[in-house]
This record gives sequence, structure tokens and C-alpha cells, in this order.
Amino acid sequence: MSIQEARLDFARKDRLGMVEAIWGEHKSSDQIVEILRTFQNHGQLGLVTRVDPFKAKEVIDSLDNVSFHPLARCLTMGEAPPLKDSNKDVLLLSGGTSDIWVASEADLALRWHGVRTELLIDVGVAYLQRLLDQLERLKQAKVLIAFAGMEGALPTVLAGLVSQPVIGVPVSVGYGVSAGGRTALQGMLASCAPGLVVVNIDNGYGAAMAALRIIKSE
Amino acid sequence: MSIQEARLDFARKDRLGMVEAIWGEHKSSDQIVEILRTFQNHGQLGLVTRVDPFKAKEVIDSLDNVSFHPLARCLTMGEAPPLKDSNKDVLLLSGGTSDIWVASEADLALRWHGVRTELLIDVGVAYLQRLLDQLERLKQAKVLIAFAGMEGALPTVLAGLVSQPVIGVPVSVGYGVSAGGRTALQGMLASCAPGLVVVNIDNGYGAAMAALRIIKSE
Amino acid sequence: MSIQEARLDFARKDRLGMVEAIWGEHKSSDQIVEILRTFQNHGQLGLVTRVDPFKAKEVIDSLDNVSFHPLARCLTMGEAPPLKDSNKDVLLLSGGTSDIWVASEADLALRWHGVRTELLIDVGVAYLQRLLDQLERLKQAKVLIAFAGMEGALPTVLAGLVSQPVIGVPVSVGYGVSAGGRTALQGMLASCAPGLVVVNIDNGYGAAMAALRIIKSE
Amino acid sequence: MSIQEARLDFARKDRLGMVEAIWGEHKSSDQIVEILRTFQNHGQLGLVTRVDPFKAKEVIDSLDNVSFHPLARCLTMGEAPPLKDSNKDVLLLSGGTSDIWVASEADLALRWHGVRTELLIDVGVAYLQRLLDQLERLKQAKVLIAFAGMEGALPTVLAGLVSQPVIGVPVSVGYGVSAGGRTALQGMLASCAPGLVVVNIDNGYGAAMAALRIIKSE
Amino acid sequence: MSIQEARLDFARKDRLGMVEAIWGEHKSSDQIVEILRTFQNHGQLGLVTRVDPFKAKEVIDSLDNVSFHPLARCLTMGEAPPLKDSNKDVLLLSGGTSDIWVASEADLALRWHGVRTELLIDVGVAYLQRLLDQLERLKQAKVLIAFAGMEGALPTVLAGLVSQPVIGVPVSVGYGVSAGGRTALQGMLASCAPGLVVVNIDNGYGAAMAALRIIKSE
Amino acid sequence: MSIQEARLDFARKDRLGMVEAIWGEHKSSDQIVEILRTFQNHGQLGLVTRVDPFKAKEVIDSLDNVSFHPLARCLTMGEAPPLKDSNKDVLLLSGGTSDIWVASEADLALRWHGVRTELLIDVGVAYLQRLLDQLERLKQAKVLIAFAGMEGALPTVLAGLVSQPVIGVPVSVGYGVSAGGRTALQGMLASCAPGLVVVNIDNGYGAAMAALRIIKSE
Amino acid sequence: MSIQEARLDFARKDRLGMVEAIWGEHKSSDQIVEILRTFQNHGQLGLVTRVDPFKAKEVIDSLDNVSFHPLARCLTMGEAPPLKDSNKDVLLLSGGTSDIWVASEADLALRWHGVRTELLIDVGVAYLQRLLDQLERLKQAKVLIAFAGMEGALPTVLAGLVSQPVIGVPVSVGYGVSAGGRTALQGMLASCAPGLVVVNIDNGYGAAMAALRIIKSE
Amino acid sequence: MSIQEARLDFARKDRLGMVEAIWGEHKSSDQIVEILRTFQNHGQLGLVTRVDPFKAKEVIDSLDNVSFHPLARCLTMGEAPPLKDSNKDVLLLSGGTSDIWVASEADLALRWHGVRTELLIDVGVAYLQRLLDQLERLKQAKVLIAFAGMEGALPTVLAGLVSQPVIGVPVSVGYGVSAGGRTALQGMLASCAPGLVVVNIDNGYGAAMAALRIIKSE
Repeated sequence: MSIQEARLDFARKDRLGMVEAIWGEHKSSDQIVEILRTFQNHGQLGLVTRVDPFKAKEVIDSLDNVSFHPLARCLTMGEAPPLKDSNKDVLLLSGGTSDIWVASEADLALRWHGVRTELLIDVGVAYLQRLLDQLERLKQAKVLIAFAGMEGALPTVLAGLVSQPVIGVPVSVGYGVSAGGRTALQGMLASCAPGLVVVNIDNGYGAAMAALRIIKSE
Repeated sequence: MSIQEARLDFARKDRLGMVEAIWGEHKSSDQIVEILRTFQNHGQLGLVTRVDPFKAKEVIDSLDNVSFHPLARCLTMGEAPPLKDSNKDVLLLSGGTSDIWVASEADLALRWHGVRTELLIDVGVAYLQRLLDQLERLKQAKVLIAFAGMEGALPTVLAGLVSQPVIGVPVSVGYGVSAGGRTALQGMLASCAPGLVVVNIDNGYGAAMAALRIIKSE
Repeated sequence: MSIQEARLDFARKDRLGMVEAIWGEHKSSDQIVEILRTFQNHGQLGLVTRVDPFKAKEVIDSLDNVSFHPLARCLTMGEAPPLKDSNKDVLLLSGGTSDIWVASEADLALRWHGVRTELLIDVGVAYLQRLLDQLERLKQAKVLIAFAGMEGALPTVLAGLVSQPVIGVPVSVGYGVSAGGRTALQGMLASCAPGLVVVNIDNGYGAAMAALRIIKSE
Repeated sequence: MSIQEARLDFARKDRLGMVEAIWGEHKSSDQIVEILRTFQNHGQLGLVTRVDPFKAKEVIDSLDNVSFHPLARCLTMGEAPPLKDSNKDVLLLSGGTSDIWVASEADLALRWHGVRTELLIDVGVAYLQRLLDQLERLKQAKVLIAFAGMEGALPTVLAGLVSQPVIGVPVSVGYGVSAGGRTALQGMLASCAPGLVVVNIDNGYGAAMAALRIIKSE
Repeated sequence: MSIQEARLDFARKDRLGMVEAIWGEHKSSDQIVEILRTFQNHGQLGLVTRVDPFKAKEVIDSLDNVSFHPLARCLTMGEAPPLKDSNKDVLLLSGGTSDIWVASEADLALRWHGVRTELLIDVGVAYLQRLLDQLERLKQAKVLIAFAGMEGALPTVLAGLVSQPVIGVPVSVGYGVSAGGRTALQGMLASCAPGLVVVNIDNGYGAAMAALRIIKSE
Repeated sequence: MSIQEARLDFARKDRLGMVEAIWGEHKSSDQIVEILRTFQNHGQLGLVTRVDPFKAKEVIDSLDNVSFHPLARCLTMGEAPPLKDSNKDVLLLSGGTSDIWVASEADLALRWHGVRTELLIDVGVAYLQRLLDQLERLKQAKVLIAFAGMEGALPTVLAGLVSQPVIGVPVSVGYGVSAGGRTALQGMLASCAPGLVVVNIDNGYGAAMAALRIIKSE
Repeated sequence: MSIQEARLDFARKDRLGMVEAIWGEHKSSDQIVEILRTFQNHGQLGLVTRVDPFKAKEVIDSLDNVSFHPLARCLTMGEAPPLKDSNKDVLLLSGGTSDIWVASEADLALRWHGVRTELLIDVGVAYLQRLLDQLERLKQAKVLIAFAGMEGALPTVLAGLVSQPVIGVPVSVGYGVSAGGRTALQGMLASCAPGLVVVNIDNGYGAAMAALRIIKSE
Repeated sequence: MSIQEARLDFARKDRLGMVEAIWGEHKSSDQIVEILRTFQNHGQLGLVTRVDPFKAKEVIDSLDNVSFHPLARCLTMGEAPPLKDSNKDVLLLSGGTSDIWVASEADLALRWHGVRTELLIDVGVAYLQRLLDQLERLKQAKVLIAFAGMEGALPTVLAGLVSQPVIGVPVSVGYGVSAGGRTALQGMLASCAPGLVVVNIDNGYGAAMAALRIIKSE
């Protein structure tokens, strides 16, 4: 078998304004190291998502300037850019601590593009008052990203309260009919709140890039 | 083919304390008339659910003392029993007018057993304030039945606000992923609110009988 | 049954900055007329989606100042606001004429909020050159909404070409595995293009409101 | 990332009359310890569901006054309240020993609220006589909770025999089409027995809280 | 296009001992007439399943010796063979009148092979006593075929009561999760009763042929 | 709304060597006429699939040189090209007359590209001898296309008998679990016969184009 | 919690003529030992299905007279009854060695009831001649049980060749669309061969008991 | 249990022109060794797919002349035949390194039949230019096989660019809605590109055999 050499999408930074990211789940640590080294040679930052601690350690042992973020399950290479001098930020909301790894992935991806973020947890719909107490804070964010497993109602309630862009991220926590996150996903898509948009289950990185597209679009 | 005669479950009234009900959807008007006539001969009330107007007219033309309730899509035979001298009632809640036929079926079934009911509409989760405005009313009901299509979040929010029994009824309104009511059903089952119970999609009658079991259980 | 009066969400305009819209599919013409009349009494605009021509005619015969838009399957009441003095616009893209009713619904909903729009059709992925020929035009839009049935690949290709917000709308055209739009929906959610967001199948109105949230967020 | 502090729903006890419970499955032992400690500081009881023995040991090693219930896979903190001076009890029924962990979770949750319970096993529908032999006992319970995997027919048969509230709990035992509990869930929802209500698969805790709502509603 | 002539499976009668049957649902009346005429020319009986009344009339108008059986939705050509001089019979059981067309199809198919049948209706599981009252009759049949929609529990209960072959036929009556018969089918396959066998939804003919294979196998 | 003019893919003929085809199902007769007229102006042939007889009549009434093929449910414009002077042909096989419309669509599409075809029907797997009798004929075809609904086993059996390319086309005939063609599709994909390829349900046109790609590839 | 003692269904042997069997998959070795000991005390045989080797060893170490059958993944207690003096036997057929554990479970269950069996392997439909070579052998069996994963076509082909009862057992081998056995199951249910009956995926025991019901029914 | 000896399909090489291949996933190393030894005794080549490294080592330790190909997860026995003296080759395309094991399986299977192959990676649709840059190379291949997980759009784009046979292979990489490869499979089946054919998820071997059928058919 003759294999043509891989060519990473270095043009992507110019075309889309995004740091090249690697989906680490189905790659070996060797493959990740090799790709990151190519980035390094081109003087680029690197972000690797969905990496378990064992794989992370193997990568860190082989490359300088790489850090592991266990909550977000991500590797980063290089230094995060300075926060932009702007009052634009992204507010991340989550109903419980079980969703936190996906929220952290989104948070890290945004910070790696210089975007300010804040995370609000324990604002689930089973006790509305906790969310309503934060109404003024909600109205100040540029973009809101809401993470939810189970029945996934948080983004719906949120999009009925504020007028900014709201991105729903279904999370694969739950059991029985909610196992895997399909119920949360469908609940967000079927939402009666106008203008709520949705990304794939557990796709914290994708939600971050959608927020980035919005922030940059001005 | 030798067919044994049908035997209606007249013992049901004694055993379960429920009026015999007929599911009208897959029966011809002739079959419905024949069954109702047998009830009449035994001096019983009758309730027929899921009947379209044409079939209803054919039944009414053939039998005395039968009425059609178009909103509920039900036929009744005989007079509803007097309302029980009690402060126990069932509160029915719905997010929109599209759910109203299922709520009406539940309402009619309860009234046919002498239970007081009230229906609150336009209390959907996309504008929470409308529901919160009713909090005192919510706390007075004996049992609450919440009807919802789309993402089906209303029963979840409700069960986080009150301590009484809450029954969720998914309704087959919506389109795309919410068509047919599966998303609302799964959202209710996956609910993060403790102690919410659920019945089949569009099963207003079933929700009513569940409420009846609770009210009678004291 | 005692029914509490419906209360329309007139606060929505202030809260969310959106014209009140009615989902017409599961409502009778009488119900639609009654709701629109209430809007009229409050001096508001009205938009009714998913209305068939027969129902539309009954509504128009009962109310002044109502128009039917057959391609979009929508009714509007009142005059569209003037287009905003801005170079911000939303570009709608569709691979074929079968998707056009959903695109038209989105277009009408945006115009009813004063947003400029343009629709590009026949830019499907089965012949890429037609899309690539429009690259400069694509780069000028503020937000892009891509409609697709079948395998739903258009939004993925688009989000790999431009850096602005891209909203994917799966459309229920197709047969076999693509009947109903589920395959297009899942393809958009599973997209390898970073930052693509998605709404429910055939939800042109929802995509428009998402675009509005983005445009207003500046 | 700036994370706002978690706030547990201490108001829940007043609002819903329920002990705060923690869903332990997707939480680390550290997270569980931290939450329980906060409860302890507020002088509250604690119940943690879906905990495996390893995680349980780590929690017990870190906190006083915590016990593990291996059959129910739950941790409890503090002493169960005295049984209420009442003849109201909840009867738990199961077709086989495979369902017993879910039944035990429900049992424990009820006892932690002072409710009397009894568990009847080996009363599956494949040999009806065993269930019919218990008919008098069935009629004495205040509420019945029936657990079933496979085809899930037990709650249906039960709801045809007694007039009290019956809650069906599908259990994820089985193989082939019954793997995961979906078949049992759908069978219970589709039941021809009037007034049967259902909770999520394996949701023993939810069924207990539903029974509690009913018992407290008098 | 050159089409090779159709060749009906006349060898089937010798090979399988079954009358040739035609599945009428997706065939035009012209196609049915043509096939039946070929049978007639070969001196064979004919059975056409799943025929609506309009199509049936067109076929009867074109051919002699053809009868329509509206309850079973079948056409037959020729005279049914005499009942076999045997005490072997097939007992058909159904929970309600909604299932009766599928039961009638099975009944007709068996009678067309000379097998004695009897049909017992209103023996659903929601009131067990009606079934238990027939226990002696159940024990006399050679083979039992049980028809059920909704949750489909009847065959399970039956197979726990008797030792003969029991064939379950799921029926497409129901709504919500039971619409289309899938829930009944899966419930029968997941049955905890040993040795229950199942055929496709609404496949009365198939169940009859399975019973015939058993009866002939001695 | 400003709509950019549609541009048909006239380059397709050069690029892919295929006649431009129109999927007629979701288009109005006006839309079809307009597109065909554009073809006519460019001197091209036209093929419109999935057209019902009413729509067909409207198109034929508006345009010259258009014919309707009722069995294939297709419209053609212009004259079919002469059959190529070659011994390469495509053999179409079908288990029953219910599949014939999809087979006819494939046949017509091939003939419109000058390819010889032959159709063999009544060669279903329930009576293998009919297929085995044709073994020599099977071995002479260049490409085989097998159409099957129900369990869809014909292509599997076929691909075990011959060494040429075999394309399986699932057909949406059947009821219960086979309704819609999903079971046939999955059966073909799961086939234990090596090298069987599959197209979408009912996609006769697609199978024809796949055969054309193979024939042209020499 | 007060637990009522388990009561095994000792009446089952009289009622159904079947050895009591235990489904071992979700039971601990302690639970299995306890149940088998009760059987032993009643002088009964025992059969435990779906037992892994580790659990099997623990049971054997605790009880006398128990054997493990690794291919069938079953435990047996006591001696198999003598083969019945009869020419009635059950022929088991399988397309490949991957299905063999399910076939062995069926085989063992039949031998434990004194029924003669024979197993034919490597008779898959991808090479028909191997099956056709066995036609005479096929015609001698009393009942045939066909095991198949992947597309599951073997029972269909078989039921078209012979007139005896044929039971299809879908097996959970395969990948992609055939993973888990659903495709094989649906293919068997959708079969165009008349009178084929089906049991749950991997349910070798169930198929054996169905065959036993047929053999005993004479 | 009497088991008839397995008979491998040695006739397959003559009938289909394919090396006998073994699906290794559900077989033990002992079973694989035994089958390969039989091949060896008949002087045949052998190919075993879906073998993990542990099982591979056990086989290699027991047999001479066997090699393991870790990227392809396959064992081969004997020497690959010489490449055919022909300019016909198969081009394999993949969007990312995650798909590479399936592509390698296809590659190995083709080389074992003497077919030339080349593999192009990193040509995913999220950055079209990388694919368009290879257009001339694409046009030279005899057959193209495109591997894709996620949304699976690569084969659609490809089949719109070239006129040769294109085979799509969905790959089970992805998460959320794309986990397991179903979304990619359905996207390929629903493709708007004419004449694209598809095989089962991860079925690299099947795609290779389909390509072989095409190449040999001339």
C-alpha cells in the first residue's frame, strides 16, 4: 500500500480563524505526538480533545510545552493567547456537576482563542429559582452556552428568558431513556423556545467554535 | 369459525371503581353501538374515547342518551354523577391550545367519576413567569396533570415547584424530532425532577384514571 | 371544566425582541383568527407558520390586513417593518427547489424583523463548482443559513469554507433512509466542520430567530 | 475559567418534603464526599444512589456516619427517621431476583422518609397463581410499585386486579430485544390496564418519590 | 425491457403442503385476477390476503367462483376442503375486538386447509379471570394462537398456563408507543414464558401456516 | 426575498457521462415543466423519476416530446439513444411483482443511456429452484441488480452464486417489521456474501447509475 | 424491608412438562447455588443458562452433582434423562461456528428433556449447495431449528424447502448494522417463507422449549 | 449432540474467484488455527479479518507462514500473489487517520488478490481544496473506495466529481449521533450523488471484494 503523506489544514487558521484542533479519541499517543510535532514546527498552537489520562501522560513525556487539563480531558500545546480587550464574554451554564467535563472542554477551547468565559453550575430546571436569581448576569453575556443531560430542558428555559444567542449542548449523562444523551438532544431540537441552536452530544468544542463565529462576526 | 360471545368486564366497576370505557379508535360505529347497548341494558354509564365526528354521529343516531364532546373527541352515555362533596380536585395544565384535546379527554373522564377539575392553559416553559404567577393555585390541587408536546418540559418544571403527585402526559404535537410525541415522552421519563410519573402519549384517559386511583386511595 | 383564559406572551416582544409567532399546524382557522384578533387589538404584528391554503383562505376571509405567502406557507398580519439601515444580511442557501418552502419561511420571518436576506439555490454538494463559484458572496454575509434534505452535507461543506456563523436546517425531503429528514439532521450534528449549529427538521422560523439573536447581539 | 460555587437545593426539603438525594453514578468519590459534607454541615440526611462498592468504600473512609447498602447500591448518611405511626404502606413486587437491586433502591428511599414497605418477590406473570395467591395482601397496600424486566407485564396484570395507585418500574434485565429495559418500559406505557403510571428504567428512587407524593397528599 | 414470464410456485403444494397464497396489498386488481386465473387453469384453490373491499369487488366482477371475506380482508377462490376427521384443532384467542381482522385471516387460512378452529375473544390480561375461566378449554386445543396489540401480554400469560405450542401474533392496534405493533412484538419476543414463538405484526396467515406445519408434523 | 436563478448542472453530462435526471416527487408540475423546458432549449434528454399519473398528465399537456412510463412512474423527454453495439448487459432480478416499479425505474434509466437490460421476475428465495434454474443466464450478465422487499435475501443468495458485480436494491414493500424497506436494506448490508453493494430503499435510478459507472469503466 | 421468601415454580414441571431452568446472567453465584440447592432438596433436575466460566466454577465448588458445559455456557444438576424411544428428533442448523454457543444451549436443553438432536453446521446461504446437499436429512427431522446472525436468511431458505415446523433463532454475531442480532431477527420476522416462527435473539433455550411443546403435543 | 464436520467452501475460489476469508472477531484462536490448517492442507491462501493482537500472537505461535498486519487487524497465510500486469488500480480515500484501519483491511484484501492500490488520506470535506487538488489522480483510478465516519460526506462529494464506480464505506468513528457509524451509513445511502454504492459499516473487506468484482468483470 502506498500512502500519501498527511497534510494538516494549516490554511484553516487563515480561512476560519480557528486554532487547529485534534480529536484525540480514536488516535494513538504516537499519532497525536506526530501531529503536534508538525504543529510545533509550524509555530502553531495545538488543542487535543477527548484524551484520557494515560494517553495524555505518554504525549507529555514525548513533547515539551504540552499540558493536560484533566477536567476538560484536553491537551494543549503552547501558551494561551491573551484575553481580548473587550467586554464580550461567553457564559457557560450547567445543571449539575456531571456535565462539567463538557463545559470545561468548551471553556478551554474559548480561552485558547482569547475569549473570556464564566461558568455557572447548579442552575438546573428542577429548582427554577436558582436560575432566576441570576437573570441580570444572564443578560450581560454576549453568548450563552447551556449544557444539560437527562431531559435537557435548561437551554429551553434559558432561551425563553434572554434575547442573546443561546447554544444548547446535550450531555451523555443519564440512564434508561436518557443514557447516551439522545433524549437531551431531541428535547433541545424540539424546544418551544425560538432561536435555540444545538450541537452534537458532548460537543463542547463545537459549541465553543460556534460562539467564536458569533463573536468574531461583528 | 365459531366465535364465543364477547363478555364485557362488568365486574370492573366493583373491582377497580371505574366506569367501563371503550377505546373507540379501531372500532366501527356498529361495534360501539352494540357495546353501549349492552351497557345500557345493565344500567351502566358509558365513555367512548378517540371517536371522530362522523362515527359519533352514527352512534348518536342509533342510541338515546348519548352525547358527543367534540373537543375531547369522546362519546358519553347517561348522566355524569354529581361532583363529590370534597375539596379534592385535579388541576390540568397545558402549554398551548394544541394539547387541548388530550386535556379535555382527561377532564371528561374525571368528571364522569364525580371529580372536580380545572384547566390552566398557556403556561408553557418558554415564558416561565406565566407559570410562576399561578404558584398558589398549583399548591391547592390534590393532583396535577401536565400535558405537553414538543420537548415536554412543563411537567419537569412543575414537579420541581410543588410536592403533590404530578402526572405527565406527552402529546403528539410537533414536527421533525418531536413528531408523534416520543421526544416529549422521553423528556418526561428522563426528568431530573423527583417523583414525576408518566403515561402513554396522548393518554388523557389513563392520566385521569391514575389521578382517580390516587384520590380514591385515601 | 373550567378553563382559564389564554394569555398571549405580549411581553415576549420586550423580553426577546421578537414578533409573536403562531405555529399554525395543529390549530383550527377559528383558533388562529381569535389569536390574531387579540394581537390586532394590542397593535402588534402577527406571523403564522405552517398554514395550508384552505385554512389560510378562511383566516383571510375573517380578518383585514392579513396576507398569505403560499411558498412559505405562512400568514402575516400588518406591514413588514422597513429594512434596517445596515449592511448586515443573512444569506440563505439551498441545494434544490424541494427545500424552498422551508427557506421561504425563514426568509419571511427575517424580513418581518427588518433583516435583509438573499436566497441562493442549486448549490448542492453533488456539483461543488456551483458553490465554489459563489465564494466571495458567501464571505460577505453576516450569517449563513443552509437548508438541505437527503444526506444534508451542504452546511458541512459551507462551514469549512467561511468563518461566519453557519446554521444548518435539515429538510424533510427524501425517501428511504432520508425520508423525514432524520438523516440530514444527524449528518449536520455529526459534521466534521467546527462550529456548525443546527435546528429541528423543517424549522425555518427557528433558524431565522437564531440569526436574529446573532445580528441583534452586537 | 471562573466557576461560581455550587449551591445545593436545601430549600427542596421545605418545598417538596424530600430528603436531598445525590445521583452517584457520574460523580467521583471526592465530589460525593464534598457534597455530603455540606449536607452534614447543614444537619441534613443524605442519600446517594447508584454507587459501586469501590466508590462506596472511598466515601465511607472519608466521612463518619455513612453506611453502604450493597443490594440497593446506595449510601446513606445519618439515621433513618422513625416509621410513621400510620397504616399506610407501600408494597413492592418483583417477578424475579434479577430486579431486586432496583426494588431495594426504592425501598431504601421510602424508609429514609419514614414510610413502611414490604417486598414480594417471585410473583412473575409466567405463573399467575403465585400472584393471585397474594390478592388479599395486594388490596391492603396504600400504593403498589411493580418492578419488571423482560416483557414487563407484571404491572399490567396488577393494575387489572386492584384499585389503588400502581407505579410500574421497568428494569434493565434481559437480552436481545429486552436488553436495556426499553421493551419493558414500552409495554408498561402501552398497557391496557387503566391508570398505570410509569417511571424511567431502573428508577427505583423516582418510583419511591412518586409513592411519597401520593402518601403525603392526603 | 424484456420481461421473463412469471412462474407461480405450483410445486409449493407438493413441497410444503400449502395452498398457494397471494399477498394482495401491493398488487392491483388486474394483477390479482391474472394470477388467480392461472391458478384456476391449474385446478388449484386460491387465497388472497390483505385485500380492501374496492379491490375485492373488481376481482369478483372479473372471475367466477371467488368470494370476499370482509372481516378477514381476504378473497378465496374455489371451495374450502372438508374438515379433517380429527380432534385436532387450533384455538385462536384475542383480547379485544380490535384484533379480530388478523384473527379472522388466520382462521380462514386454516379452514382453507381443512383444519378446525375456534375463536375466543375478550380474554385480555387486564381482567385475568376471564382467561382463567377458560382453562379447561385451553388445555384441549392442539395449538393455540394468541393475538394482541397494546403491550401484547396475552401470549405470555397463556404460555405460562398450558403446555401445548403457543404462537403469538402482535397486532398493529394502539397509539403512542404501541402504534404499529412494535411494542407488542417485542413484548412477545422478550417473554419470560418458555417456548413462546412469534410471527410478524398482523401476520395472521403466517401464524396459521405455522400451526399447519405443527399439525401436519405428526 | 431576492432569489438567484437556478442553474442546472449541464456540465454533469460531460463530467459524469449521465443524462440529467430530475427527482419529481417533491416538485410541482409547473416546476418540472420549467426545468424540462430549459433542458429542451439546451438540446438535452430528460428523465423525471417518481411522478404520479396526475402530475404526469399536466406535464405532458404542457410540453411536446414527453412520454409517461406508468410502471416505472417516470417521464422521459426526447428519444432514447440507440442500444450500444456491445454484449454488455444488465440483468435485473426480482422476487415478486410488488417490486416491479423500482425495477422498471432502473430499467428505463439504463435504456436511456443505451444499455441493454433484461428483467427476471418470480425468482424469490422462498423457492430456490426457480433461481437455480437460471444459473447459466445469471453468469452471462455484465452486472446484476437484485430487487427485494420483505427480508431482502435475494441479493445475498445471488452474490453467493456468481462472480460479477451484484447491486442490491431494497424495496419498500412489506408490513410490520418490513414496512418501509428498512429490514431489507439492513439484511443486504449485513449480508454474509462477499462484495455485495447496496443503494437506498426504492432507488432504482441510483442502482442503474451505479451499473452504468461499472460498464463505462472499462 | 421485609422480604417474603422466594417460591420456585415447582408446579411448572407438572403444568408445562418442563424442567425448571434458571437464567444465570444477572444472578450471583450465591443466588444460583441457593436456588439449585432448593431444587436438589425437592429431587429435581436443574439447568442454568448463560453462565460464564468463573461463576460456573464457584457454583461447582459449592454443590455436588453439577456440571459445566462451556460451549453452551450452561450448568446442569443431576443426570440427563434417557433418550426417548422414538424416532422424533430435532435438527439444529447453523451457518457458521460463531453461532455455535446458542445452538449448544438449545441442544443441551432438549437433551435434558430426553429429546434426540443433531447439529449441522456450515450450511449458510452464501453457498447454497451445502444446504441443498442435505435435503433428504432435512426432510427426516420432526422439527428444525435454524440459527443465524448477520442477515439471518438461513431459516427463510429452509422454510421454503421443507414442510415441517421451522423455528428461527437470530444470533447476536455481526458488526455494523448486524451487531446485536436485530437485523437477523427482523429478517426472520419479515420472511417471505410461510409459517416460519421466531424467538428472541440468542434464545436457544426458548427455541428448545418451543420444539418440546411441538413434540409433546402429539 | 452429534455435530457434522464443518466443510469449508473450497469451491468458492472457483465459483467467485475469491480467496477464502475468515471473519475472526467471534472465533477463538483455536478455531482460527484449525480452519487455517485445513486451508494449508488444501494449498490455499488464507485471510483472517478483525483479529486483535493477542489472538494474532496465539495463531502465529501455532502455525508457520502466517503474518499479522496490525494496522489492518488481519492475519494472512501464504504469500500475496504478484501484482497483475495491468494499469487497473483501486484508489482508497479517507478523511482522517481514524479511518485508517478499515482502509488498511480493504487494501490488504485487494493486494491478496493481486490488485494495485493507493491510499490518499486527509482529504475530508471540511477543507475541500485538499480533495480538489487531487482531481487528476482521482480520474485515473479504475474504482474508488471512500472511507468516512462522522457525517460521511466524502463519498457524496467524490461521486459528484468523477464518473468511475465509487464505493462508500461508513466507519464507526465519532461520538454522540455519529457513534457506531449509522449516521455515516445513512448519509451515504441518502446521497444526492448518482450511482454511489455502499457496504456495511467498517466493512473494508466487503468493499474490496466489490471492487474486485468490478475489475474482474471486464
